[in-house]
Amino acid sequence: MHPPDTLPRAVLLLSGGLDSTTLLAIAARDGFAIHALTFQYGQRHAVEVDAARRVATDARVAEHVVCDIDVRVFGGSALTSDLAVPKDRDLSAVRAGIPVTYVPARNTIFLSYALAWAEVLDARAIYLGVNALDYSGYPDCRPEFIAAFERMANLATKAAVENGRSIAIRAPLIDLSKAEIVRLGISLGVDYALTTSCYDPLPAGIACGRCDACLLRLKGFAEAGRQDPIRYATA
Amino acid sequence: MHPPDTLPRAVLLLSGGLDSTTLLAIAARDGFAIHALTFQYGQRHAVEVDAARRVATDARVAEHVVCDIDVRVFGGSALTSDLAVPKDRDLSAVRAGIPVTYVPARNTIFLSYALAWAEVLDARAIYLGVNALDYSGYPDCRPEFIAAFERMANLATKAAVENGRSIAIRAPLIDLSKAEIVRLGISLGVDYALTTSCYDPLPAGIACGRCDACLLRLKGFAEAGRQDPIRYATA
Repeated sequence: MHPPDTLPRAVLLLSGGLDSTTLLAIAARDGFAIHALTFQYGQRHAVEVDAARRVATDARVAEHVVCDIDVRVFGGSALTSDLAVPKDRDLSAVRAGIPVTYVPARNTIFLSYALAWAEVLDARAIYLGVNALDYSGYPDCRPEFIAAFERMANLATKAAVENGRSIAIRAPLIDLSKAEIVRLGISLGVDYALTTSCYDPLPAGIACGRCDACLLRLKGFAEAGRQDPIRYATA
Repeated sequence: MHPPDTLPRAVLLLSGGLDSTTLLAIAARDGFAIHALTFQYGQRHAVEVDAARRVATDARVAEHVVCDIDVRVFGGSALTSDLAVPKDRDLSAVRAGIPVTYVPARNTIFLSYALAWAEVLDARAIYLGVNALDYSGYPDCRPEFIAAFERMANLATKAAVENGRSIAIRAPLIDLSKAEIVRLGISLGVDYALTTSCYDPLPAGIACGRCDACLLRLKGFAEAGRQDPIRYATA
């Protein structure tokens, strides 16, 4: 065992949702000191930022930074504008085409900030919680995008160019179903009561239970044969 | 001639300096409706943002957005922290190694925002004003970085993935010297009196005349046989 200050460092994109909280447990198991990075943008996700803070504290990360994203360049997206979040959709519709909750180039921007911080920290890895259910709809959740970003990143930084120190983009959830993610997280001791996934939570932070994110999460827990510990408005 | 609203669109990264102002003239010559994007970060560059506004207004761009960048993830850089800006250096020192004004992953972050906006606008090109003098020191100013970003960008967006509409990253200054940039800009009618390049301007916005950026700019004008129209504290 290394003491925490001699562990290799990783930057981890932490939303406070089910996926990135599981990701945090994986990165800790992999032996990294974790520098968690959470983005704040638009109004809808203030509840998520609170969840990210709880998760980061609970996991005793080395550091947690909440970074503001100026959304002036983003146009039509339910996460950043006033488009309605779809409710009670058949989940087969979620898989067909790019969802309305798509934010242009979001993972590219998130990974770029992570890359900047990784360079400052001399981190060896960036962890990103994209998974199979996402990449059916979002172009920047696919393995070929992750590989192309990694290649670009290793041409972009001083550490890589002057010292030959490369950075790996790790997306260990990419091929897992939600049920597999839940099972893996529980085996690693994740407390899902700290997390939130809802696109449209009630003021008190209670999940709506009807948006795509809630429906996918509930289906994941059901298929894993587990009870989701968070509260839903529809329960 | 197309009326402006039927021209193809380009996003252009505009700092208000000599290079990006020349770039703007090139993109206009190339026949694009220009959507200019300026970043505000740290304290030093408030003078540059003012210059960018003057340049954008003068060039009658289709739109100009000033976007805030949260620099919490950036550590040691003279552009964002309190490190001293080097003065009166021999310009051969500027070419040796990565400069102290290096900001980690800066162009990656800037291009990522440009990509997001390009997707919203359905733009066909992103213009970036990197040039030969820069890429001796900054890893993210080299042609191989630009090519890798372009490849990644075309895997990242809905437009590319669903509709096969690709985006080009154009860096037309990349092989030019400062003197060549000045000559090209003057031939295209650029008014360099509107621009600023200084890393450490006086409160009134007057260029110091002694930082690397001022020295490179002055040398460029001298080699082009032209008078730099801006005021310098050292003149």
